[in-house]
Amino acid sequence: MSAPTLPAPGPDGRWADRTVTLADLPIRDELRGSEPYGAPQLDVPVALNTNENSYPVPADVVEAIVDAVRTEAAGLNRYPDREAVALREDLARYIAHGLTVHNLWAANGSNEVLQQLLQVFGGPGRTALGFTPAYSMHPILSTGTGTAWIDGRRNADFSVDAENAAADVRKHDPDIVFLCSPNNPTGTALGLDVVEAVLAESRGMVVVDEAYAEFARPGTPSALTLLGASPRLVVTRTMSKAFALAGARLGYLAADPAVIDAVRLVRLPYHLSALTQAAARAALAHADALLATVEAIKQQRDRIVDELAARGLDVVPSDANFVLFGGPTENGGLGDQKAVWRRVLDRGVLIRDVGLPGYLRVTAGTPAETDAFLVALDAALDQKGQA
Amino acid sequence: MSAPTLPAPGPDGRWADRTVTLADLPIRDELRGSEPYGAPQLDVPVALNTNENSYPVPADVVEAIVDAVRTEAAGLNRYPDREAVALREDLARYIAHGLTVHNLWAANGSNEVLQQLLQVFGGPGRTALGFTPAYSMHPILSTGTGTAWIDGRRNADFSVDAENAAADVRKHDPDIVFLCSPNNPTGTALGLDVVEAVLAESRGMVVVDEAYAEFARPGTPSALTLLGASPRLVVTRTMSKAFALAGARLGYLAADPAVIDAVRLVRLPYHLSALTQAAARAALAHADALLATVEAIKQQRDRIVDELAARGLDVVPSDANFVLFGGPTENGGLGDQKAVWRRVLDRGVLIRDVGLPGYLRVTAGTPAETDAFLVALDAALDQKGQA
Repeated sequence: MSAPTLPAPGPDGRWADRTVTLADLPIRDELRGSEPYGAPQLDVPVALNTNENSYPVPADVVEAIVDAVRTEAAGLNRYPDREAVALREDLARYIAHGLTVHNLWAANGSNEVLQQLLQVFGGPGRTALGFTPAYSMHPILSTGTGTAWIDGRRNADFSVDAENAAADVRKHDPDIVFLCSPNNPTGTALGLDVVEAVLAESRGMVVVDEAYAEFARPGTPSALTLLGASPRLVVTRTMSKAFALAGARLGYLAADPAVIDAVRLVRLPYHLSALTQAAARAALAHADALLATVEAIKQQRDRIVDELAARGLDVVPSDANFVLFGGPTENGGLGDQKAVWRRVLDRGVLIRDVGLPGYLRVTAGTPAETDAFLVALDAALDQKGQA
Repeated sequence: MSAPTLPAPGPDGRWADRTVTLADLPIRDELRGSEPYGAPQLDVPVALNTNENSYPVPADVVEAIVDAVRTEAAGLNRYPDREAVALREDLARYIAHGLTVHNLWAANGSNEVLQQLLQVFGGPGRTALGFTPAYSMHPILSTGTGTAWIDGRRNADFSVDAENAAADVRKHDPDIVFLCSPNNPTGTALGLDVVEAVLAESRGMVVVDEAYAEFARPGTPSALTLLGASPRLVVTRTMSKAFALAGARLGYLAADPAVIDAVRLVRLPYHLSALTQAAARAALAHADALLATVEAIKQQRDRIVDELAARGLDVVPSDANFVLFGGPTENGGLGDQKAVWRRVLDRGVLIRDVGLPGYLRVTAGTPAETDAFLVALDAALDQKGQA
């Protein structure tokens, strides 16, 4: 075999004699015209758009992660533990509720956990029901795995009640129901009566996405307390938010051991790197230090709620590290949320337009970030008044 | 909402009043009865079953990885660069051939890269053609994404020739063709005439899996040299083998920039952790130190080929860090490969039964590992003679 001498591409990666674009490739028809999912990654002074934890990882936890990586690094020539047993034991210890390694499963962010659940319990010919607006990846992951997505009903105040949820399940008979508690982007936790009603009414899996559970207001029970009720119940969590580890990508689920057996059938072998496993374990060993920021963030969350309510805006009750606000224009709301989002951004504060007309979402971060957000929002609203 | 007081599971994660197993859950019908993919993870003195690099990561590279992680760790509260731009620039520099960041894409192992390609170019109603036996994840990932799998033809000596491959493409008109060069588990690299013939005959994507490219014998050209010929050509690579980084999970592809745009439509947002990106960049900065083991491994590979041939076994020519051997019993072959595999394992050496009757695969590792393998194999073959 002789090496051909074909030309290399130019600096833009494109070949001089080639005018191919995405549209010219044989991609799936339903992907034509779609855009990659994700919030704009802009370089701004104050980023309050992706519900990250604004507090950096403390120095002692950094050193613990570094030490854990040093221990693993020489052995990186070997594949990682495919079962991530030690990590899952640590996660079980953290999550408590009597759960053990057999009830836990971990992957690269809760997105991958949710995708695995859809691969095994959803897919072509099957359906998933969610209550929009909720985490926007639920429908994206569903359609991405060939699972037909069905929108359930929320009340006008964005709440979901047991009766309506059960009626939607009865009507659509879905293979998977996604509940989100505390709900993103609205912020409010679900009553467990909703989870119980959906479980009672459905024959399929019920996934409660609790990515923001650690920020819930006192007295908010987790769906973890219901795992004893049904093997069809799955609770997903993440270390991206309260644990301030969004960059490390560690999501997990808790469920009956049979669910973990099911997910194993579709997971990519060695899906979770030895570095991810080591870093997550180091973080879990320092859970107290990392979770110390949660109370401070909840204070800012409550402060934002109070401040926005004092400005006459509709504010949705929040059990998370973010606040959805706005409301109908006749009540003195935001009006065109896109315009307000842009005017706030012009002042160096990036918040999130989640596509709900008249509403915007802001992450609760440090006190200084709240200050900057409120100043920027007030200026944006003043400008609106003058427009 | 009041917290329910449901029971916790026992130490085995199971609830006392529950006898649920995987079979009782509403998993997809085609997954019923299937097993999780993966070689046995056994604790043995000599593991030559997963084509890992037997050489640990050198101390200076360990320190570089540790330093890179220390730099990232404080900022793990933020999501990683969703585009992994710096890593892709480094990969482009390593892979050369004039390629740039716009031609490269990375994910958690080449398994995730391949899954993304199947999600965007395969899926329900589409087909993938491969030439079995090849990398066993190709059909698994295909069916896992709803892509119908078609087995193409290899010659009796496991080779693939341009004429037969083109005929199979003509016959089946697949949406994706998987070529594997050097091929796993047989070890031999493809002639580029095969890649050119498949490209010329097909309307779909052509994926050349070059996971073992760095181990190829001198004069073996890479399909990277053909990227200028077609935007439908994709070459996948990994840092798991030559780079001795199986534990870090870093696979990548090189292709026309339009292919990277296509993969972006289906990738999970923030799929690649900041730690993975940092560790891989540190390793690429020390490519020479890591790749220094490649020549030593190739020597052991060639030694294994010579030794097994001298024993009268059929040995498939290898451009990889492993050797497939055995052959028809009438030629003095292995006979029942399962029995030989077990007898070799009984002597502390784990090799791979890839499911090819009469053949086994062994990874080339250190000289001492080759010694141990040959001793164990000789004893196993003697025992067979006595049986």
